[in-house]
Amino acid sequence: MRLSRAFLPTLKETPAEAQIASHRLMLRAGMIRQEAAGLYAWLPLGWRVLQKVTQIVREEQDAAGAQEILMPTIQPAELWRESGRYDDYGKEMLRIRDRHEREMLYGPTNEEMVTDLFRAYAKSYRDLPRNLYHIQWKFRDEVRPRFGVMRGREFLMKDAYSFDLDKEGAVRSYRQMFVAYLRTFARMGLKAIPMVADTGPIGGNLSHEFIILAETGESQVFLHRDLLDYDVMGQAVDYQGDLSPIVDFWTSRYAATDEKHDEAAWAAVPAEAQVTARGIEIGHIFYFGTKYSAPMGLQVTGPDGALVTPEMGSYGIGVSRLVGAIIEASHDEAGIVWPDAVAPYAASILNLKPGDAACDAVSERVYEALGRDALLDDRADRPGAKFADADLMGLPWQAIIGPRGAAAGKVELKRRATGERLELPVEEAIARLRMPTLPPVAGC
Amino acid sequence: MRLSRAFLPTLKETPAEAQIASHRLMLRAGMIRQEAAGLYAWLPLGWRVLQKVTQIVREEQDAAGAQEILMPTIQPAELWRESGRYDDYGKEMLRIRDRHEREMLYGPTNEEMVTDLFRAYAKSYRDLPRNLYHIQWKFRDEVRPRFGVMRGREFLMKDAYSFDLDKEGAVRSYRQMFVAYLRTFARMGLKAIPMVADTGPIGGNLSHEFIILAETGESQVFLHRDLLDYDVMGQAVDYQGDLSPIVDFWTSRYAATDEKHDEAAWAAVPAEAQVTARGIEIGHIFYFGTKYSAPMGLQVTGPDGALVTPEMGSYGIGVSRLVGAIIEASHDEAGIVWPDAVAPYAASILNLKPGDAACDAVSERVYEALGRDALLDDRADRPGAKFADADLMGLPWQAIIGPRGAAAGKVELKRRATGERLELPVEEAIARLRMPTLPPVAGC
Repeated sequence: MRLSRAFLPTLKETPAEAQIASHRLMLRAGMIRQEAAGLYAWLPLGWRVLQKVTQIVREEQDAAGAQEILMPTIQPAELWRESGRYDDYGKEMLRIRDRHEREMLYGPTNEEMVTDLFRAYAKSYRDLPRNLYHIQWKFRDEVRPRFGVMRGREFLMKDAYSFDLDKEGAVRSYRQMFVAYLRTFARMGLKAIPMVADTGPIGGNLSHEFIILAETGESQVFLHRDLLDYDVMGQAVDYQGDLSPIVDFWTSRYAATDEKHDEAAWAAVPAEAQVTARGIEIGHIFYFGTKYSAPMGLQVTGPDGALVTPEMGSYGIGVSRLVGAIIEASHDEAGIVWPDAVAPYAASILNLKPGDAACDAVSERVYEALGRDALLDDRADRPGAKFADADLMGLPWQAIIGPRGAAAGKVELKRRATGERLELPVEEAIARLRMPTLPPVAGC
Repeated sequence: MRLSRAFLPTLKETPAEAQIASHRLMLRAGMIRQEAAGLYAWLPLGWRVLQKVTQIVREEQDAAGAQEILMPTIQPAELWRESGRYDDYGKEMLRIRDRHEREMLYGPTNEEMVTDLFRAYAKSYRDLPRNLYHIQWKFRDEVRPRFGVMRGREFLMKDAYSFDLDKEGAVRSYRQMFVAYLRTFARMGLKAIPMVADTGPIGGNLSHEFIILAETGESQVFLHRDLLDYDVMGQAVDYQGDLSPIVDFWTSRYAATDEKHDEAAWAAVPAEAQVTARGIEIGHIFYFGTKYSAPMGLQVTGPDGALVTPEMGSYGIGVSRLVGAIIEASHDEAGIVWPDAVAPYAASILNLKPGDAACDAVSERVYEALGRDALLDDRADRPGAKFADADLMGLPWQAIIGPRGAAAGKVELKRRATGERLELPVEEAIARLRMPTLPPVAGC
């Protein structure tokens, strides 16, 4: 994309309403715009990141055997009366009456609807296990929305729902999502730690939050150092096999948010292994048995002909929130520092002197070679403004093309994360930019 | 995907509420489920088609120079008061009050919001032209939603909005979308004809509907036979070049829906070139000048320093409606006949005798070779049920594996669209299934 034709409006001033780094940087880098309290439009730069994050979530759900569906944003109120949650949910639920005065709502979560959907089709034990997920916009009418996409009112969630014949199967499904979540976040360059959690309004008896470490995190967390050293992507996973070695590694070592912190258990962790940090919740998984299937009458015929009420779990990832969380975990004074896997483009190409024949020729050559995965700054601005914008947008590489270097057939490459610079002949620079980069480990 | 583990619930009975072919077939093939009047959940088979259709729309918008953003589904009412449309829109608009009693609405279209967004950033003529599009769920509270996804209340739309400095630029933007639409629909195997249209509630002075031909279409259309013979994908397009030869070809020949039909002009079309058919609207483009930019105060500085009010257009495609429309244009008594480009999977692999060693070995080999782009029917059903389901789901190819053929190392391939069958050795069958297929021309 050529910046001269792009809709990538960066801001020089820091907007007054933004209290945290990700909100400030997303506004300044032209990723989002607030349309009303807690409602954001995603501009092209932000939208590309949201798509990349979404695609990683999708691929890892598919790999774990979950199947994608899409439920509507608007739900009939009757479903929530069946489960008994309609009155529980309070003012956070956006309630709507349609033109026929039927009670509807903008879905804050989908346990009821997916249970209704599944009971329409599942008849026998052969229809289980199944794990259905969707990636959809949800609405929670927060009293005071703030922190940008970290706590908006309309937000994108992935939620998966598992259906199993018995508790053993449900625990297997839970573990599949547990492992899929570790891999999902690791691919985005995040260090995510599962921590035992309260089940809250979803209910149930087993639950983990996934917390990423970031200096600006919302809560204090306590964990065993081993968990930081675990190489999630270093091993192949067979989702149909025994996942307990992986799950046991994580659950046998201390990790807790301040809400669930247990001083006695913490004291038993060797002092040199104690890590305290700030954390941000980006995922939450629940096993809740028959909390929805029983009141809503979901039953299937078991192998022996008797009726069985399936055991369920649900598994959420805050997809739009993740974009903010990644920035919280990876930024500096000058701007965002995108992990490669979720960067909106791979490189900024900075033509420092548009109109200079050598600068134009080299810039066009690099741009042509990288194609759709590069941003070409061909605007008639001063070099200082281009450097500042490139650092702010935070693409992993900058290819800097000035008159002297270009005349000598050279490009200067700058790695955004480290500041490392190298000057290379044009074709070598292109080859370097095309090399796959190992995913960096952020947040620790 | 193995059918034994998939969530692909086909129905044997035709649901009573479905009046048209696409609605009936989408329900029977397990593509969608109605959750409330006009609200549908997309099940895995339907969701895959919706994703493929969305991706084609996206690629052709990008190719034409439009840039993707995403605006929220919920909008503040104030924006619609600025344009003067808040009271015009009637009961089709789903109006909402949030917990602070602020007036909101579920967006039925986005002219106001995108104008507001653009005016926040665009300051000078250098910020034009721009074309911003998004693909988002919308809501129109139809009195009597029906025909499945063809006229639902919650539906997926692509809408693009162009901003130009003057009328000449705006007409250029309009033509870019005109050509992009021709290509978008051609890639999906559809014959889409642009027809002059009324502008309705969007307003403006120039407008075309894109109508596909289908026997079950909602309106009568009249067109010159030349338009059916035009090979849209047969020529490269330079969106920055002169598009008038393409646009003029289409606009100089007679094409009209019954609403705009002109008997005198029709009489001038040679009798042998007169084609009458049924049509379905799948896209609509508008040039409306300053209808929104003027009342909403969108102005930029022109090259001479004077303030200019940009000229706008908007360009819609009914993305979820397209899924139904493609089925209306391409089905038979036995079920759906997917054009290759939008088929949910490339092939059904029918293991006619699971448990038979040869059938299992050949089926697994073909499934492994095709990977994620195949459906393996490994269920313990009778062959007749498998044939019926495969025809109903309508994947372009069926690889039929029975005990006799499998023992001889043979696979029978059936092409769904033509019924053509050929028996091939396993590896040759795999090679045939992997060959790219020319897009079929449907609907004429």
